[in-house]
Amino acid sequence: MTSTPIWPRKAWYVAARAEEVSDKPLGRRICGEAMVFYRRADGSVAALEDFCPHRGAPLSLGFVRDDALVCGYHGLALGCKGQALQMPGQKVGGFPPIRSYAVLERHGFVWVWPADAETADPAAMPHLEWADNPAWAYGGGYYHIACDYRLMIDNLMDLTHETYVHSTSIGQKEIDETPVKTRREGAEVITSRTMDRVAAPPFWRMALGAAGLPQDAVVDRWQICRFSLPSHVMIEVGVALAGEGGYDAPLDRKVSSWVVDFITPETETSHHYFWGMARRFKVEDAALTDSIRQGQGTIFGEDLAMLEQQQANLLHWPERRLLLLNIDAGGARARQMIDAAIAEEAAVPA
Amino acid sequence: MTSTPIWPRKAWYVAARAEEVSDKPLGRRICGEAMVFYRRADGSVAALEDFCPHRGAPLSLGFVRDDALVCGYHGLALGCKGQALQMPGQKVGGFPPIRSYAVLERHGFVWVWPADAETADPAAMPHLEWADNPAWAYGGGYYHIACDYRLMIDNLMDLTHETYVHSTSIGQKEIDETPVKTRREGAEVITSRTMDRVAAPPFWRMALGAAGLPQDAVVDRWQICRFSLPSHVMIEVGVALAGEGGYDAPLDRKVSSWVVDFITPETETSHHYFWGMARRFKVEDAALTDSIRQGQGTIFGEDLAMLEQQQANLLHWPERRLLLLNIDAGGARARQMIDAAIAEEAAVPA
Amino acid sequence: MTSTPIWPRKAWYVAARAEEVSDKPLGRRICGEAMVFYRRADGSVAALEDFCPHRGAPLSLGFVRDDALVCGYHGLALGCKGQALQMPGQKVGGFPPIRSYAVLERHGFVWVWPADAETADPAAMPHLEWADNPAWAYGGGYYHIACDYRLMIDNLMDLTHETYVHSTSIGQKEIDETPVKTRREGAEVITSRTMDRVAAPPFWRMALGAAGLPQDAVVDRWQICRFSLPSHVMIEVGVALAGEGGYDAPLDRKVSSWVVDFITPETETSHHYFWGMARRFKVEDAALTDSIRQGQGTIFGEDLAMLEQQQANLLHWPERRLLLLNIDAGGARARQMIDAAIAEEAAVPA
Repeated sequence: MTSTPIWPRKAWYVAARAEEVSDKPLGRRICGEAMVFYRRADGSVAALEDFCPHRGAPLSLGFVRDDALVCGYHGLALGCKGQALQMPGQKVGGFPPIRSYAVLERHGFVWVWPADAETADPAAMPHLEWADNPAWAYGGGYYHIACDYRLMIDNLMDLTHETYVHSTSIGQKEIDETPVKTRREGAEVITSRTMDRVAAPPFWRMALGAAGLPQDAVVDRWQICRFSLPSHVMIEVGVALAGEGGYDAPLDRKVSSWVVDFITPETETSHHYFWGMARRFKVEDAALTDSIRQGQGTIFGEDLAMLEQQQANLLHWPERRLLLLNIDAGGARARQMIDAAIAEEAAVPA
Repeated sequence: MTSTPIWPRKAWYVAARAEEVSDKPLGRRICGEAMVFYRRADGSVAALEDFCPHRGAPLSLGFVRDDALVCGYHGLALGCKGQALQMPGQKVGGFPPIRSYAVLERHGFVWVWPADAETADPAAMPHLEWADNPAWAYGGGYYHIACDYRLMIDNLMDLTHETYVHSTSIGQKEIDETPVKTRREGAEVITSRTMDRVAAPPFWRMALGAAGLPQDAVVDRWQICRFSLPSHVMIEVGVALAGEGGYDAPLDRKVSSWVVDFITPETETSHHYFWGMARRFKVEDAALTDSIRQGQGTIFGEDLAMLEQQQANLLHWPERRLLLLNIDAGGARARQMIDAAIAEEAAVPA
Repeated sequence: MTSTPIWPRKAWYVAARAEEVSDKPLGRRICGEAMVFYRRADGSVAALEDFCPHRGAPLSLGFVRDDALVCGYHGLALGCKGQALQMPGQKVGGFPPIRSYAVLERHGFVWVWPADAETADPAAMPHLEWADNPAWAYGGGYYHIACDYRLMIDNLMDLTHETYVHSTSIGQKEIDETPVKTRREGAEVITSRTMDRVAAPPFWRMALGAAGLPQDAVVDRWQICRFSLPSHVMIEVGVALAGEGGYDAPLDRKVSSWVVDFITPETETSHHYFWGMARRFKVEDAALTDSIRQGQGTIFGEDLAMLEQQQANLLHWPERRLLLLNIDAGGARARQMIDAAIAEEAAVPA
C-alpha cells in the first residue's frame, strides 16, 4: 500500500470489538490492508485478505459455511489459512492461496497482526490489568476518524487540550498550569501530571457522587498517560479527597479509572479508534457504565472534530514545521518508538 | 479521454431508451465522450458533443428551436452536423464546428457510433428477433453502475453467480453443478448450460404459473448466453416441462425469454446498463410485464452491488492477477473479441 | 498554493460581509490561502493565517480573548500581527509568528489584501458612490460557486446571457440584438448597451410599479458594466420612460440601480460571490429591498448552475480553445488587465 510505512506491521492491533465479529463476515481495512474477519463454529476468529482469488470480489460480501468463508459471487470456499477448499465443478488444488492473518481474541477485542502470520508473537499481546477482572467495570465505543493515527497519539499524550477541547467536562485551568513529566519506562512512554487541592470538573464531580463521596470536595487529581507500541494509550486518571494520598489514597477515598485507547491505522490519513473507560468504583452499576460511555462518547467526539480539521489543515500546508514543546514530549517520544520499530522491521523484512 | 482505449469505437452502443430522448436535450457520457442527444420535429434523433464552441457551456443545458440545438448560455444555434447556424448579432460562418455522431433509433433504443460518423455502418446494427415483433413482449430498465463495463460482461457470461448472488429468485444449486459449454459461433461467443429434471426456482415457478403450466412441475432448464461486439449479451433462458424437448419443446409446454443486456461504457470505471426481458408467453399481459420488470430490477440490483464492490477491490489491488476457470471462458473469449476489435481500430485509425 | 497564480495578490478583495465577522472566528479561504477573521473589542477586524504554529490546528476553531485569537486545541494565544502572545506554562518568545493580513472594513464589507501586509494600499480601495449614502438603498447576498472566478467576470461583462439564462426576469430579445460597446476608461473596462423604445421585462415592470411609474410604459433601457481590478464588476442598469433622456432622464422618470458584484477567488476552480443591488428609488422601502434581494438571489442562482457546469465542461476538455466574439470583449479586456497585474507582481515580488 505504502512504500514508506508509517506504522509497524509486527504488532497486535485491535481490529474489532469481539461482538462485531460473527459468522457474518466483517470487512475492515487495517494498516492499509483490506481484511475480512469471521467467526468459526468453535468461536475462534479467522482473518483473511478481503479478496477472492477467483474474480477479486470482496469476501466480506460472502458467507460462512462449515467454518469456510464462501465467496458470495461464484462460491469459492476458502479456509482460515487462505487456501482454496472447494468450488462447485472445479478442481481447486492449484488455486493460489490468499493471505491469512494471525488473529487473537483477548480482553473483549479481536486483535490482528498485519505482518506475516509466522512472525506473530502472542507474548507481545499487552497485559491489561482491568480486562476480564471482576474488580473492574468496562464500557466503550468506536469512532472512525479521518486523520493519521499519530495525531490521535499526540492528542492523548498531551492532555493540556482538555482545558480547551473539553472545557465543559474534564478540562480545568490547572491542567495547563501544571507542568508535565515525561519519561521512558521499559516499553512505555509515560507522561504524568498531578494537580493538588483543586476543584473537580463536572465529569469527576459526577464520579465522586456516584461513588458516594462529596462532589464539592477539594481533590488531588492525577493523569498518567502510558503509550506502548504499536499505538495503545492507557491513561490512569482519578481524583482523591485532598490530602488522602492522591494516586495512592485508599480505594474508598478516591475515584479512579483507566481511559482506554486502541488506535488502529486504517489508511495514512484515517484510523479506527476504540475508546473506553475501565473503572474500579461502583463496578456493578450498569447504568453508570452506560452513562460514562455516553459522556465519554461526547467528549471524544470533540477530539474527532478537532483532529479531522487538524489533518485537513496539515494536508493544506504540507511544508510547514510544527513546534515541539515540553507538553509535546509524550507524543514525540512515542513517535520515536514507532519510528524505531518501523526501522527495525525494514532491516529484517517480514 | 484515454490513451489506450478499453472499448471499440466503431460500433453501435445503446445511448438511451427511445423515450428518454425528446426536444429537451439529454446529456450523457458514452465511451468517455460527453454527448448531447435531442429529437427533431420529424422525430429523428441527433447527437453532438456536449460542448458549445463559444464558451464551453454544456449544450445539454440549452433547448431545441427549429431543429437546431441552441446553447442556453448565449444563444449559439448548432445544426445536427455540429455546424454553427446562427447567433444574434454574430456572423457564424467562421465558427468551428463541433463533432456530431452517427445515431440510429432501432428496437426502442437510440444507438450511437462513437467513432467518426463517416465510418458508421448501419449494417452493423444487431438484429433482434424479439424487437418490434408482436409475438414478443418486452420490458426493461436502466442502471448506472460504477464498474468497468467488462466486469458486467464477465458477470453475464458466467451464470454460476446466480446460485450465490440471486439465491432467492433464479439461483439453484444445479447451475454450478452443471458444466458449461463455451464456443465461438460466427460473430458470437456462446456459453450454454442445460439442467435436466430439476425443480424450478421462484422466478420460473412464477412464469410457469403465469403461462398456465404447473408451478411444481419437474422441468428441463436452459441458459444460452450470447455475446456480440461491442458489448451486448443476449441470454436465452427458459424451462420446459421435463421430457418435452427442453429448449425445443412446443411453445405450450415451456416458458422462455431473452434476457437483454446492452452494456455501454461511460468511463473506464462506469457504464450504462440497459437491461430487460423479452418473452414469448402471455405477451398481451401488461401487468405481467410490469411484474417481471420489477423482479428483474431487484435481481440486477444485486449484481450492481456486487460489481461495484468488485471494482473497488480491483482498484485497491491493481497488481493482482485473477483466475481464469472454465466457467470464465465466456467472459475471457468476449474480451478477446473486444481486444481484437480495439487492435484493428488502432491499426486503421478512424 | 499555485506556481502560476491566476489572480493578483496586491489588491483588496471582499472577504466577508461585515455582519459575518464577530468575536467568533471565521475561517475562509481567499486566493488559495486559508485565513481566519475575527473582530476585536474596538470593532476592528484582524486576519491571520488559519494555522496554529504549535500543532497546525485551524485557529478558526478557537476563540477570542482580550483581542487575542486563542487556539482551541492547546491554548496558544496569537496577536493580530500573528505573533505568539501567551501559552500556559510556555515561554513563547521564540515561537515563529504566522502571517497576518492587511484588512479594512468599508462599505459594509471586510476587505483583505492577500499580499504582504506592508504592501497594502488603502488608496486602492474602490470608491462606491452608493455605499454609506442615504440617497441609496442596498441589499445583497452571498453564493459559493464552484468555478474559476474569471468565468463569473466573463458572465457579468457579457449580458447577452440574460436573454437565455434569465429569460423569465430580466432577459429580452433586444439585448442580444443590440450591439455592445466596449472600451477602457482609466482603471475600468466598460461595456455598455442601450435599447431604445422597448418593453420592460418582468423585473423592470416590478421596479416601475414600485417607483409609481406605469409598468406597461415603453422604456429606454441601459446596461453599463464596469470592471475594475482585481475582480469587481459594477453594473449600472435602469429603464426610463421612452424619450425622457434614457440614462440621463430626471430621477422621477426612471428607475435605476447598480448591480454590485464582488468576486473573490477561493481556489483555482471556486470563488466567493458577494452580490447585491444598490438602488436610488424607494430607498426607504425595506420590504422592497427584501423583495429585490430575493428576486436577485433567484436570478444569480441561475448563473451559478450554468457556471458550475461550464467549469466542469472546461475541465473535461482542457485542450479546447474558446471563441472570442465582440460580445466577449469586456471579459477579454478584463482578463488582460488581470494578466498585466499578475505580471507586474511577478516582476516585483511582494
